[in-house]
Amino acid sequence: MSLAEKILQGDIRSAARLMRDIDDGLRSSVEELKKLYPHTGRAYIIGLTGPPGAGKSTLVDQLTAAYRKAGKRVGVVAIDPTSPFTGGAILGDRIRMNRHADDDGVFIRSLATRGHLGGLSRSTGNVVNVMDAMGMDIVIIETVGVGQDEIDIVRMAHTTVVVMVPGLGDDIQAIKAGILEIGDVFVVNKGDREGADRTVRELSAMLDMKPSKPGEWQAKVLKTEAQCNRGIDELVAEMEAHRGFLFSSGAINHLLEERNASMFMDLLKDRLFSEFFAHIKVNGRFRQIIDGMMSREKDPYTAVEEVLTEETGRVKWTGSA
Amino acid sequence: MSLAEKILQGDIRSAARLMRDIDDGLRSSVEELKKLYPHTGRAYIIGLTGPPGAGKSTLVDQLTAAYRKAGKRVGVVAIDPTSPFTGGAILGDRIRMNRHADDDGVFIRSLATRGHLGGLSRSTGNVVNVMDAMGMDIVIIETVGVGQDEIDIVRMAHTTVVVMVPGLGDDIQAIKAGILEIGDVFVVNKGDREGADRTVRELSAMLDMKPSKPGEWQAKVLKTEAQCNRGIDELVAEMEAHRGFLFSSGAINHLLEERNASMFMDLLKDRLFSEFFAHIKVNGRFRQIIDGMMSREKDPYTAVEEVLTEETGRVKWTGSA
Repeated sequence: MSLAEKILQGDIRSAARLMRDIDDGLRSSVEELKKLYPHTGRAYIIGLTGPPGAGKSTLVDQLTAAYRKAGKRVGVVAIDPTSPFTGGAILGDRIRMNRHADDDGVFIRSLATRGHLGGLSRSTGNVVNVMDAMGMDIVIIETVGVGQDEIDIVRMAHTTVVVMVPGLGDDIQAIKAGILEIGDVFVVNKGDREGADRTVRELSAMLDMKPSKPGEWQAKVLKTEAQCNRGIDELVAEMEAHRGFLFSSGAINHLLEERNASMFMDLLKDRLFSEFFAHIKVNGRFRQIIDGMMSREKDPYTAVEEVLTEETGRVKWTGSA
Repeated sequence: MSLAEKILQGDIRSAARLMRDIDDGLRSSVEELKKLYPHTGRAYIIGLTGPPGAGKSTLVDQLTAAYRKAGKRVGVVAIDPTSPFTGGAILGDRIRMNRHADDDGVFIRSLATRGHLGGLSRSTGNVVNVMDAMGMDIVIIETVGVGQDEIDIVRMAHTTVVVMVPGLGDDIQAIKAGILEIGDVFVVNKGDREGADRTVRELSAMLDMKPSKPGEWQAKVLKTEAQCNRGIDELVAEMEAHRGFLFSSGAINHLLEERNASMFMDLLKDRLFSEFFAHIKVNGRFRQIIDGMMSREKDPYTAVEEVLTEETGRVKWTGSA
């Protein structure tokens, strides 16, 4: 039986194995993903993002518990800050949510912020698809929402939750402004801290100033204290309200189209580059170009134009990674 | 006279114009960049990164003043958090470093974290090349160092300064661990705050644990109070020491090779994708694939393999964006 078939029958260990194969860039993993794809599209995907120190992991832990209580199976994809040299994730599954460790209805996976051939968003999309196909009702993607990559990832979700925290500096205010536009639900966590109510008011005021069209979703600001499980039910209810809106308004179609387009484009970008690059590396053109750049005899703009016109016809485009 | 020629003669307005053209993705800008390339390679490039709220902008402002006092011309490329919807930068040149506004020896440019056809690192590389060619002695690249994109950008620099601040949360500790490996110089800014000395000690202890080979650069941790100009001269001296080390040890060659390779690869990736994508958009294949994905009849993995084998031969690879 193939990995995909075992996964579709609910075998957790096969799912873990496939995710490792995806990470390792094994060619066979693509074949398994192909088989799983027709079985995806059923999970409700939640993106959760916010600055470092906002208490996102604790919040995800509480949300997981709340959904479990409601009988839902929950997948979590946590995007961890990476060590740029070793490529290893710094936080890990180990230290995450130990209390769900023995629960078969919870599947947690950490992804490091640097993949093999290209984008983190591609790997995340693949892992979300596996969780979806294996029958997770809810998939939560958690990122540190400062970099553009992380924001792109969160936008794969049906509902995006932006987590803020009282009393951060000026830069955060700026990021807030950018993050206003991606949030469907806003949470001020650590709501017992000084300044929490002010942060809620400020965020609400900023949201009110945002130009909106009739029939559009109106994002609200909630207050939580994840550490002592306060405000979690209200957050779940608000997310469900947003999910309901997506379907009743028809906005879901546009959202899915965007998601599918960006998944396809990511895959395409990686393949084009990896096959072409392998070609010019083997035939020595790459080395030649870098030497030319080092001596300033060749500029990279001209070099790209030259290899495109001369080499694209010679690449064996196999479509295999 | 071409823009490039004017820039080489020191015309600031032409440089600003070219940077706008780069931003707007004008094809003519590539021709100008080609002409400038042989005149690059003279500037000393400093990368400065750290979490939100670390006081990076103030530090850059003080460094600029210090280098100006020493008679150096200074370029600053500030990577600002972007509004993902509007594409606009949230902070801007406007609010940055007003005190240098009338100084011809200072050139400041903000870049938003989302470019047109592809990577921020590509745009940053192009802007750094323009500043280099126009005769800036020092080019400082400032980013919010949490996302992978931002870390990649900082690695274009000769010397990377990592700015930390006392008293941030647990997530920051994790990011610290990742960021340890990219810093040539570490700064604990806001050094008057409670816990500053502890943060310095912790960082130093972490650096001591890092495995290092004989003859490698040993990063130090400095303390600054950028707001009242304390510790800036020491920081400049330490950066100069690192620069000296790069040249005396020969490490500069490896560093430049990496920089050139990643600049070329970024350009190549963008071109391959944009030309291929334009082709399948015009001929209707893209629309067809997305429709297939929406109905789950076509998986994206198979779709990529199909278009690669069927369409690459039909693309007119002109090498022009």
